[in-house]
Amino acid sequence: MYDGIKGFRDFYPGEMAARRAAMDTLEETARRYGFREIGTPALERAEMWTDKSGDDIVDELYAFEDQGGRHVTLTPELTPTVARMVVAKQQALSKPIKWFSTRPFWRYEQVQQGRQREFYQTNVDIFGSSAPEADAEVLAWAADALTGLGLTDEHFEFRISHRDILGGVLESYDADVDVTAAIRAVDKSDKIEAGEYHGLLADAGLPYDDAVQFADLIASGDLEAVVEFSDTERVSDAVENLQNVLAAAADFGAREYCTISLETARGLDYYTGVVFECFDSTGSVSRSVFGGGRYDDLIESFGGQPTPAVGVAPGHSTLPLLMQRAGVWPEETISTDYYVLSVGDTRTEATRIARDLRANGHVVETDVAGRSFGAQLGYADSINAETTIIVGERDLANDEITVKAMDSGDEAQAPVDAFPGDLERPTVDDFE
Amino acid sequence: MYDGIKGFRDFYPGEMAARRAAMDTLEETARRYGFREIGTPALERAEMWTDKSGDDIVDELYAFEDQGGRHVTLTPELTPTVARMVVAKQQALSKPIKWFSTRPFWRYEQVQQGRQREFYQTNVDIFGSSAPEADAEVLAWAADALTGLGLTDEHFEFRISHRDILGGVLESYDADVDVTAAIRAVDKSDKIEAGEYHGLLADAGLPYDDAVQFADLIASGDLEAVVEFSDTERVSDAVENLQNVLAAAADFGAREYCTISLETARGLDYYTGVVFECFDSTGSVSRSVFGGGRYDDLIESFGGQPTPAVGVAPGHSTLPLLMQRAGVWPEETISTDYYVLSVGDTRTEATRIARDLRANGHVVETDVAGRSFGAQLGYADSINAETTIIVGERDLANDEITVKAMDSGDEAQAPVDAFPGDLERPTVDDFE
Repeated sequence: MYDGIKGFRDFYPGEMAARRAAMDTLEETARRYGFREIGTPALERAEMWTDKSGDDIVDELYAFEDQGGRHVTLTPELTPTVARMVVAKQQALSKPIKWFSTRPFWRYEQVQQGRQREFYQTNVDIFGSSAPEADAEVLAWAADALTGLGLTDEHFEFRISHRDILGGVLESYDADVDVTAAIRAVDKSDKIEAGEYHGLLADAGLPYDDAVQFADLIASGDLEAVVEFSDTERVSDAVENLQNVLAAAADFGAREYCTISLETARGLDYYTGVVFECFDSTGSVSRSVFGGGRYDDLIESFGGQPTPAVGVAPGHSTLPLLMQRAGVWPEETISTDYYVLSVGDTRTEATRIARDLRANGHVVETDVAGRSFGAQLGYADSINAETTIIVGERDLANDEITVKAMDSGDEAQAPVDAFPGDLERPTVDDFE
Repeated sequence: MYDGIKGFRDFYPGEMAARRAAMDTLEETARRYGFREIGTPALERAEMWTDKSGDDIVDELYAFEDQGGRHVTLTPELTPTVARMVVAKQQALSKPIKWFSTRPFWRYEQVQQGRQREFYQTNVDIFGSSAPEADAEVLAWAADALTGLGLTDEHFEFRISHRDILGGVLESYDADVDVTAAIRAVDKSDKIEAGEYHGLLADAGLPYDDAVQFADLIASGDLEAVVEFSDTERVSDAVENLQNVLAAAADFGAREYCTISLETARGLDYYTGVVFECFDSTGSVSRSVFGGGRYDDLIESFGGQPTPAVGVAPGHSTLPLLMQRAGVWPEETISTDYYVLSVGDTRTEATRIARDLRANGHVVETDVAGRSFGAQLGYADSINAETTIIVGERDLANDEITVKAMDSGDEAQAPVDAFPGDLERPTVDDFE
């Protein structure tokens, strides 16, 4: 007997049905916005990550040498792959390019609640527009997808900022600041004590008093104060862009879910503009569920024409936790419209009925194990059949079958030749 | 600029839409039969394959050591994984267990038409029934799925046999035959010359004259002759089982697609009963598209209770080739119901219309790049928009918008307040 691998989940039908319902909602919403599905490989050249050294992600790669001597890795995220795909067909693709996909990714991380080593994301990206409407559409998709799952503004909020606000304010200090390190410190600020946070900022080169002042300014979320303090075009442009995105988000229907939060930085280095994180507001401890933002330089860094981009990637490990806490996670059960029970020498008629019901689009099972009446009825119950059609020899001799509602136990006879006949979805009520 | 890896495909939206339509047909058909979706990991312990030495598949594994020192592999097929999953929950699962899933697998093979190193399959399996109805249901699903794709009995056939017919007949010879090697020879027989075929049978231990006689007997497909020649219970039982499966297939609606073909052996060693392959009959050269069969011993070999099983796994690399040859592969294009074109200061009204149309379930795009009238109209054309709604400042001043049919170019004015109003799917015809 073999075990599965730590951090890699098996999904049995009940849980999978709930996950599929959530994935379908995200994907159907994306399709309605005109995002188009793409298919992407599980393996890429490891250099796509290792060439940019210093990233945490490199230590988490499932990388190896393939039989052809290629240094390859299971992909830990989608963005470099879609960047590669955009570059490969840059001329042929009409802009803006709007793509989505749902698939697993792999990172060798510590396994904990909501974090597996194999994890699924629905990635949604727009390439080729720097306009605030593109950011707003990504936010609108995320809001529509979450409300489509039954969540409301009581359950989640989008904390939104612009990467240049932090960067620009940091530049205003008369000190040699490691901006990346400082932004990482801000990114962690809600998970650590104030003292540790200030210490990390100091480590990044900010004198201690400035670190405290900076932390307070950013925590205030006061856009005017930020512009006034820094007094640079970079910060005032960033604030203006953020305000334009929020105005567009109002038209696109997503503004009500957005809160300005200048501490929102997103750890990944490739973000360049507006960044946001979806926070779970169902509990006393707010948690980040997923995030996204603008990454205008990535395509060029992959050798393509300069191409602005913005995207988001809800994960199917953390989303179920949010939905469970909000009480909107689907029941983890399977459902069945009909079980066609065959007793005695009635297989020909029973399978004919099953096929006719399937042709109407219903989920229909029939006996494939030569089992007794009781065993079949128990099985029908175990698959949550709504209606069981009993095809017995004696009934058939009278050209009849029995229709049984599984919840009430009500039964009625029905003429076999007219079943299902013109009835789209026959129930016991049609024959009582 | 990075390249993708040989044998790993990128799927852009047009091709992906066609693939998704095919996958959806297979999956929707499976759901109607009461097969339940499962989710399975990309990585398993390599020992699940390497413990059974001698299998070709072992040389094709993408195997490596993970950061925790586990010897793992990208899964080259689903069956061992589902066997592991059945064993892990054997007591809790009600039988028969009917599962399906669509996902990629990986084998380091020679890349050629219809064969990539990353390839997608829809696996459909029944566990816990040895009855011929289970084999028949798997055949019926495959037939329904293929006809659902637009294929007919002119395009494909299922060549069907029983593994014990070959094995039993080989046992009847007064020679020390390597049955596995001989069955592999039969499996290759339609791809090699008769002389080479006879030679392989001889290598497997069959005297040359017997090899020729055996090849002719098997090629005849004559079940009575086979029973008479071998005169063993094993062969007569196998023939009876095959006949029972074909009789059940008649009730389940799949008999008309089945041809008895005793040369059908399936290379994999784990098959134990009825085996079948779907052949492409659209061209002068028949090709195997996919196969399946019964594998009653596998669950037990994975440490579970003895559990009969039968399954099939159409692949999404060869299926498109069959569909293309038959002329039923979907057009590789994207489609869009509405493009909402915004010119001037009309974003608020344009996005309101886009949102209302999306709420009706339509695929709707609107401007997210701040572009000109002409650029937007060109984009609407590039995404095959059926109708464009033009929201201009002057029209809006008169409380009107323009509805434009993209194929005819016909236009009509519509009142903005009543658009879309009660109309489910407004077109220019509603306002002319």
